[in-house]
Amino acid sequence: MRNTFGNIFTLTTFGESHGEAVGGVVDGLPAGIDIDIDFIQSELDRRRPGQSIVTTSRNEADRVEILSGTFEGKSTGCPIGFIVRNTNQHSADYDNMRDLFRPSHADFTYYNKYGIRDYRGGGRSSARITISRCVGGALAKLALKKIGVEVVAYTSQVGSIALDNDYTRYDLTQVESNIVRCPDAEKAKLMESLIAEVKSCGDTIGGTVTCVIRNCPIGIGEPEFDKLNAMLGYAMLGINAVKGIEFGSGFEGVTHRGSEMNDIFYPEDEKIKTRSNNSGGIQGGISNGNDIFFRVAFKPVATLLQKQETIDKDGNPTTFKASGRHDACVLPRAVPIVESMAAMVILDQFLYNKTTKL
Amino acid sequence: MRNTFGNIFTLTTFGESHGEAVGGVVDGLPAGIDIDIDFIQSELDRRRPGQSIVTTSRNEADRVEILSGTFEGKSTGCPIGFIVRNTNQHSADYDNMRDLFRPSHADFTYYNKYGIRDYRGGGRSSARITISRCVGGALAKLALKKIGVEVVAYTSQVGSIALDNDYTRYDLTQVESNIVRCPDAEKAKLMESLIAEVKSCGDTIGGTVTCVIRNCPIGIGEPEFDKLNAMLGYAMLGINAVKGIEFGSGFEGVTHRGSEMNDIFYPEDEKIKTRSNNSGGIQGGISNGNDIFFRVAFKPVATLLQKQETIDKDGNPTTFKASGRHDACVLPRAVPIVESMAAMVILDQFLYNKTTKL
Amino acid sequence: MRNTFGNIFTLTTFGESHGEAVGGVVDGLPAGIDIDIDFIQSELDRRRPGQSIVTTSRNEADRVEILSGTFEGKSTGCPIGFIVRNTNQHSADYDNMRDLFRPSHADFTYYNKYGIRDYRGGGRSSARITISRCVGGALAKLALKKIGVEVVAYTSQVGSIALDNDYTRYDLTQVESNIVRCPDAEKAKLMESLIAEVKSCGDTIGGTVTCVIRNCPIGIGEPEFDKLNAMLGYAMLGINAVKGIEFGSGFEGVTHRGSEMNDIFYPEDEKIKTRSNNSGGIQGGISNGNDIFFRVAFKPVATLLQKQETIDKDGNPTTFKASGRHDACVLPRAVPIVESMAAMVILDQFLYNKTTKL
Amino acid sequence: MRNTFGNIFTLTTFGESHGEAVGGVVDGLPAGIDIDIDFIQSELDRRRPGQSIVTTSRNEADRVEILSGTFEGKSTGCPIGFIVRNTNQHSADYDNMRDLFRPSHADFTYYNKYGIRDYRGGGRSSARITISRCVGGALAKLALKKIGVEVVAYTSQVGSIALDNDYTRYDLTQVESNIVRCPDAEKAKLMESLIAEVKSCGDTIGGTVTCVIRNCPIGIGEPEFDKLNAMLGYAMLGINAVKGIEFGSGFEGVTHRGSEMNDIFYPEDEKIKTRSNNSGGIQGGISNGNDIFFRVAFKPVATLLQKQETIDKDGNPTTFKASGRHDACVLPRAVPIVESMAAMVILDQFLYNKTTKL
Repeated sequence: MRNTFGNIFTLTTFGESHGEAVGGVVDGLPAGIDIDIDFIQSELDRRRPGQSIVTTSRNEADRVEILSGTFEGKSTGCPIGFIVRNTNQHSADYDNMRDLFRPSHADFTYYNKYGIRDYRGGGRSSARITISRCVGGALAKLALKKIGVEVVAYTSQVGSIALDNDYTRYDLTQVESNIVRCPDAEKAKLMESLIAEVKSCGDTIGGTVTCVIRNCPIGIGEPEFDKLNAMLGYAMLGINAVKGIEFGSGFEGVTHRGSEMNDIFYPEDEKIKTRSNNSGGIQGGISNGNDIFFRVAFKPVATLLQKQETIDKDGNPTTFKASGRHDACVLPRAVPIVESMAAMVILDQFLYNKTTKL
Repeated sequence: MRNTFGNIFTLTTFGESHGEAVGGVVDGLPAGIDIDIDFIQSELDRRRPGQSIVTTSRNEADRVEILSGTFEGKSTGCPIGFIVRNTNQHSADYDNMRDLFRPSHADFTYYNKYGIRDYRGGGRSSARITISRCVGGALAKLALKKIGVEVVAYTSQVGSIALDNDYTRYDLTQVESNIVRCPDAEKAKLMESLIAEVKSCGDTIGGTVTCVIRNCPIGIGEPEFDKLNAMLGYAMLGINAVKGIEFGSGFEGVTHRGSEMNDIFYPEDEKIKTRSNNSGGIQGGISNGNDIFFRVAFKPVATLLQKQETIDKDGNPTTFKASGRHDACVLPRAVPIVESMAAMVILDQFLYNKTTKL
Repeated sequence: MRNTFGNIFTLTTFGESHGEAVGGVVDGLPAGIDIDIDFIQSELDRRRPGQSIVTTSRNEADRVEILSGTFEGKSTGCPIGFIVRNTNQHSADYDNMRDLFRPSHADFTYYNKYGIRDYRGGGRSSARITISRCVGGALAKLALKKIGVEVVAYTSQVGSIALDNDYTRYDLTQVESNIVRCPDAEKAKLMESLIAEVKSCGDTIGGTVTCVIRNCPIGIGEPEFDKLNAMLGYAMLGINAVKGIEFGSGFEGVTHRGSEMNDIFYPEDEKIKTRSNNSGGIQGGISNGNDIFFRVAFKPVATLLQKQETIDKDGNPTTFKASGRHDACVLPRAVPIVESMAAMVILDQFLYNKTTKL
Repeated sequence: MRNTFGNIFTLTTFGESHGEAVGGVVDGLPAGIDIDIDFIQSELDRRRPGQSIVTTSRNEADRVEILSGTFEGKSTGCPIGFIVRNTNQHSADYDNMRDLFRPSHADFTYYNKYGIRDYRGGGRSSARITISRCVGGALAKLALKKIGVEVVAYTSQVGSIALDNDYTRYDLTQVESNIVRCPDAEKAKLMESLIAEVKSCGDTIGGTVTCVIRNCPIGIGEPEFDKLNAMLGYAMLGINAVKGIEFGSGFEGVTHRGSEMNDIFYPEDEKIKTRSNNSGGIQGGISNGNDIFFRVAFKPVATLLQKQETIDKDGNPTTFKASGRHDACVLPRAVPIVESMAAMVILDQFLYNKTTKL
């Protein structure tokens, strides 16, 4: 289904940038989970615009209202409906795009697909709709906490400023210690400067997010189409602006030989371990108990505060310069969204896996 | 569902490497499509083992038998059941792996997930199960032919021998002219030599496949979770040994600025075109009429003809050396599988899109 | 998925009787449909409590708020989120049922399933949650109107007061002319009296709703599991208190011979007609162009204003007498719900059928 | 999906009456179930044509071949592919129906839906395709046996010869003791005579099957759309020729008052019991631990060995008299199919329910 994510634990979303509200329904959350509203709100705050100088200045409180599915502080097993009102809308900012298609945006494709489009702020294709994903992700995290699974992501590259691919070199408790959400304080400063510089030109810049999932039980993921990496890939490539994903050794690993890349098993303390983790914690589509990790590529934001050539609805050449409030780099705000999608996949597949044995 | 792929056009598969047969059911193929059995068989022949010196010598005819869903040479709209018998099984080759877990294979994860595993030839995790995907893909291609869509893939990298990322530089009609399925004859020879060298050491090597989809109508793909890139990513990451995927400008594009990467619209011959195609033919998750292209990373095959350390079921250290017939590089045989998965996604989403307007 | 209905056109619902709101998300509504909010509200008003003396006196305005998916009065193809606030809650009415299980209600089964239950007003099992179904149904009706399909239901039996099974004997434009929604004015009065009498004893009574779908195109419904009657049956049996459904000749028809029951084709005015319609408009699971009709059985409401024996959570015998505001007979308010579910099925299957040919 | 049944435990089917084979894929069967092939074959034998004088004389061995998903006698958690070859085909019997539409069959609707139809023996709409359901049902029964659930159905009515609605009055171990599968030996003889009489006229007769599910755990079924009765209703109404279903008190119950129909809880031997079972074992869509029971109505078979008026493809009047081998009454052979569908629903929902708690 178009606007529903997941199989057992599902998130169905609705909403546009300049409509009444964005929101959704989370279904399949097991009963008896502690629903910590403050935590859910704090997750939303991590993706909130206006949170720092590196993000858009559209400043919305983005207060989530939970409408159902909880009772006396716990999930009941019934669906959780929620909404976040759109309050700080500058629809007039978008009047100049009513009749034209912005380059590398979804304006052209939506219009051709549906024959109608809500042009205000990108409508349904706005990054604003990821709010619902963060709520779904926060609920998934609350359930995962109960089984000890931790999902943490960070900005691993902005433009050409890149961290080492080996996430184990970094202290991931430091991710929230700076506004770009990069665990390397020095690189974080460089990234911050780069974003500021890019922004000052009315331009934008891309980057990557790395995500690490720790303590995932062995056996999660289905062997054929629903391999755990396929589900995670689907989840990440459905985030706005994502152009690629790689697991474990990824693209770099293809240049190596099997004898270099195989993860050799060995016993240690009555557990089965591997001497390397080039597989990224997934073998045959199923988690093997190691850390799961992957890297996600975000293209530079398409909205520039520069004049660009484009065409109007009738196919005539025109120019366009955005005037709204926009991010010059989505990476810092993308971090919680990547975590949210990953958390939902892991919980969904964890639940699915419960049906593997009678 | 675990072993079903797609929403409207679906493929459900079954079978293990050393069972009676592999096969599947294709559902949702529109009625009235010409079912060209020879074409379907020719697609299977492209992934067949033993087809050349760069592939495994397991030599199976892999004859497909269509059991239902066609009448007088046309699809009827009813499900198409098919099987391919397993005939050239050397199960004894696998006796030595009954009680141990091969490194970087699915043995360990299957056993932990199910508490039981068919260890012969990798069982369900064998590359042999991709036969069913090729049959599904061939049927999808027959339908796509009717609407003019073409899907073509090729080996774009083996080890460090890589083609230029710009696929438009190559003549894709030459893909089948050499056994590695690379449109650059010179690079193809180098790849062939590399594979031979690697094989002679009992080792393996990875690579990438690039896939191009031409003439895809505008408007295919759903805006939220089922973005066309997300569906394609899910499809590709579900192929054995795939570790990554990137669309259009991909990972390299993250280092550039928006002003460099935006695909500028302009009118030409009453059509709307773009001056570049960094988006890879997809904007906001929806096809924009340009060529869709992406690159898929395959890790080196995990099965080595070298002795490796590993552990047995009881966690004790042991060693393992494979004795069966194996590919030193899967890339040449992966090309038709990538095409098959892509064809199924495009047809599925094309059909889905028919419901967008009343 | 548990709280999602449909395949292409889907409704996902949330909400409990005494939570903040009930609501849902409609997905897959084609783009370009006129969204008549007044019509949607009028459909809600038909199921509203307190609308007449034969319904519960819980008096809620039940104002629907559409939050997304429409633009300038038309559907955009994006999901339509909606909520209806719960305003007239008398939660204290339910304090006495916190620790016991009401007979023939869902209290016992929910508690055993989830280990927790929102006991206020029946929680998720309350008839109040059918509000979301009426909104979904209203949207489906707006789309069906565009293709000329009409769905009309009526109360065909209350207790032993039953209409003739042949719906063609009645003028269905008269359904809304009385408060029990029965097209036979005389029988309607008897039904009204019966309900009043039953209510005066603190008791309840069951009945049947008959539903007729006119002008459904030929070819709707899928041949194997998703037969049109199976989809309609699933939809109806998912309504609270429904215990049975029969199509066309139904249970009575089993006593007859094939030679009596077959619907003989004949040509008339260049159309193919049948001399009878014992099939109820569906043959082999697919609509044949005739009126589709079926009859749905509703058991008497389980909530009595009489003292009943029951047990508490600890399994100890106790007694219970409801004190809230309740319907003595759900039939009048069930009519729009039956129509809503039927409309959603027909639209969903109509859209699905668009994918049958290329 | 059109030809897939179920959510977690699924059956995907293919095949037509006169194609190469019928078959399917069972997915989601938990690992470690003993796969008793003899039992599966014995279930097929119960639906086999030619098994007795009350069934069609089309005499096929219907030997099932399991192609995958089992290893050393146990299910592996991988999909189970199976086929049953069509061997005793008299396609020539159907030449006379190539260009006409048989009354009350699916010929007309298939042709209009797909623009093409395999007219031989009813094609996909033949009762022959229920073979796959029996295989799926047999596998589900093997799993249910492990958790102690028993599914048993019987012929409760043929024409006007009807058993009492109270199934507890009968000894269900006697169902297989006669060829109509009726636990009342005396009524069975009357039914047998009636079928013989009807058959001698070239006519057909309908009837009902009652199904009882014993020892179903409390808590199975989902509260909103996937109520257990809705899932069972969907399953039954998807069987060829079914026109209705009723649970527990069913249609008769609507004439009674709530005070008569409520199932009063009381404690007995530390268990919670009910004094009656008008709910049919399901409350609020969820099993309550009582026997689940329902009754299914089958219309008389549409194929008569009598001349009937009808029309041809061009809409011209003609006549038709069937010449193949046909059942005069499907009830005896329908019994195992009803059981199979019920067993699949219960197993599917049992597995789904495992995800309700973490």
